[in-house]
Amino acid sequence: MTTATRAATDAAAMRRALGLAERGPAKGVNPRVGCVILSPDGDVLAEGWHRGAGTAHAEVDALAKLEPGAARGATAVVTLEPCNHTGRTGPCAAALVDAGIARVVYAVDDPGRHSAGGARTLRDAGVEVEPGVLADEVEAFLEDWLFAARERRPRVTVKWASSLDGRVAAADGTSRWITGEHARADVHRRRATADAIAVGTGTVLADDPALTARDADGALLDDQPVPVVFGRRPLPPDAAVLRHPHEAVTLPGADLAADLEELQRRGIRSLFVEGGPTLATAFLAAGIVDDLLVYLAPALVGGPRTAVGDLGVATIADTLRLHFTEVVRLGDDLLVVARPSHPETDTRERV
Amino acid sequence: MTTATRAATDAAAMRRALGLAERGPAKGVNPRVGCVILSPDGDVLAEGWHRGAGTAHAEVDALAKLEPGAARGATAVVTLEPCNHTGRTGPCAAALVDAGIARVVYAVDDPGRHSAGGARTLRDAGVEVEPGVLADEVEAFLEDWLFAARERRPRVTVKWASSLDGRVAAADGTSRWITGEHARADVHRRRATADAIAVGTGTVLADDPALTARDADGALLDDQPVPVVFGRRPLPPDAAVLRHPHEAVTLPGADLAADLEELQRRGIRSLFVEGGPTLATAFLAAGIVDDLLVYLAPALVGGPRTAVGDLGVATIADTLRLHFTEVVRLGDDLLVVARPSHPETDTRERV
Repeated sequence: MTTATRAATDAAAMRRALGLAERGPAKGVNPRVGCVILSPDGDVLAEGWHRGAGTAHAEVDALAKLEPGAARGATAVVTLEPCNHTGRTGPCAAALVDAGIARVVYAVDDPGRHSAGGARTLRDAGVEVEPGVLADEVEAFLEDWLFAARERRPRVTVKWASSLDGRVAAADGTSRWITGEHARADVHRRRATADAIAVGTGTVLADDPALTARDADGALLDDQPVPVVFGRRPLPPDAAVLRHPHEAVTLPGADLAADLEELQRRGIRSLFVEGGPTLATAFLAAGIVDDLLVYLAPALVGGPRTAVGDLGVATIADTLRLHFTEVVRLGDDLLVVARPSHPETDTRERV
Repeated sequence: MTTATRAATDAAAMRRALGLAERGPAKGVNPRVGCVILSPDGDVLAEGWHRGAGTAHAEVDALAKLEPGAARGATAVVTLEPCNHTGRTGPCAAALVDAGIARVVYAVDDPGRHSAGGARTLRDAGVEVEPGVLADEVEAFLEDWLFAARERRPRVTVKWASSLDGRVAAADGTSRWITGEHARADVHRRRATADAIAVGTGTVLADDPALTARDADGALLDDQPVPVVFGRRPLPPDAAVLRHPHEAVTLPGADLAADLEELQRRGIRSLFVEGGPTLATAFLAAGIVDDLLVYLAPALVGGPRTAVGDLGVATIADTLRLHFTEVVRLGDDLLVVARPSHPETDTRERV
């Protein structure tokens, strides 16, 4: 094969491997990975994918479909760097070497603390290794898993719905509904894509939220986030969150970094923080916010019940700077999507 | 002339009259008005426009250009209903009758308390009267003047610049600059189009604003709003506002409706309320806001210094409902333009 033909064959096989990866479970501790075994001529010999923790990894799943010796001299095309780690299954790098694979093509390096290093193991065994094929597509596909593996914590989205002047409720605490049905439907769709959804105990006691993702008729969507409650106060035994399809996780909330490590250990890679203001403010003040969703209602409320409390910003230069990534009209409301700006990459002058 | 030809001739003459009106002064007690005198065949006999309080009205200005008797049987096309009022000049309706004008075409009814009724006077004298020609265009041209004449007060725009969470300053009061240069330039452009710009004495004492409309280099723009300071505290003798090209108007602020009547009497038809929060909140709580401009910076500040204070909203159903009319990106910032919703015309469910 010419170099150009080989590159085209690799890319086509990688796209197929990505399609196989999509068959795996969207949530869980392990990433979704697909693998295609190609003959030296570029014919597909076998395909595999990972079906979730405790089952075979994609490479092993594909190799298992071949007669012994059939993979000798073949190319393995896999969406993620083959793991180097003996966990509930053996290391894939060793399995590929043992099967006589001559060449491994993969998209994205494995950022895992224990699982990385497969490429080095393969090269040390004389296997040709080509990383980075379709890397952007696979990065996007594994975004939350990669984020969590690299940062050792779930990706955190903080959301609130406020009036244009930043209030979440009137003086007496009433708030239903500050925003309209389009904004609420958008929240439910986003809830369904998160691994977990978090509130503080104050919100459980005040609003008794179900923390489910529902459609406009109130029916449960197929994907349900794990409910997480931060705080030390006990939950009432009849709290709606205790009737959630998933068992609620309770965390003390005093050390958010430690709590997020715990969620990470439980395979939660994305956390949707819904409030109340005390919890949202704690995440903001701790600097643990990756994405911010602010639903702004066309209303002014005034008074004491602000969406954000005290961030410890004593003087304006200490302001938490963001950048707006998206602004969307949702019915009568606005959704403003923002991300914290990192000073080293922020071209904006300091205020 | 056929009816269709006459309608086309009237519209063309009205567009010309509107062009003449634009030559008048943009600010002042009187509206900008233009007038075209047409022969029965539709030829232009004379043109006129109003040059400001104390000078001839547009109709009289046009008639003055004709020989005595030359207007007999002619049509006067004028942007505003001819006045019926003897002020510093005589009533135009009578002048048109005296000149022998047979037909009057105008765009918009005069809403003035003393000046309205010209159409009736003309009809009583046997003059054919046709109102409403190009009414929408003239309405838009005279928007602020018509608003002030109808509501007996200036049109009020309340503006603030806040962080996404509705703060105007950090805990120590520092605020420069929450928003960026594009937002500030937009504010200066809008200042220049307002008749007056208002702040409270607290803002004068805290920030010492110049209340001028300036370009990016700090040079004064051609049009400068009259500075208005609300409040009872005396201004420091070296306050920047006292060096404004226009003399500052000071008003007590305890009765905003009375204060606005006073501004109306001074020929101020549009008022740009720039803050601080106390003054903005007072206008909002009094229900005297026609347009709201909220510049949102990509920042979170938290803490006590909110753009809006206590609006007296005890429960969420009492919320001041708005509708968003425009959302604009200005550099890194957002401008949200909103108007209060009037319950009788608001189709949105109450919250």
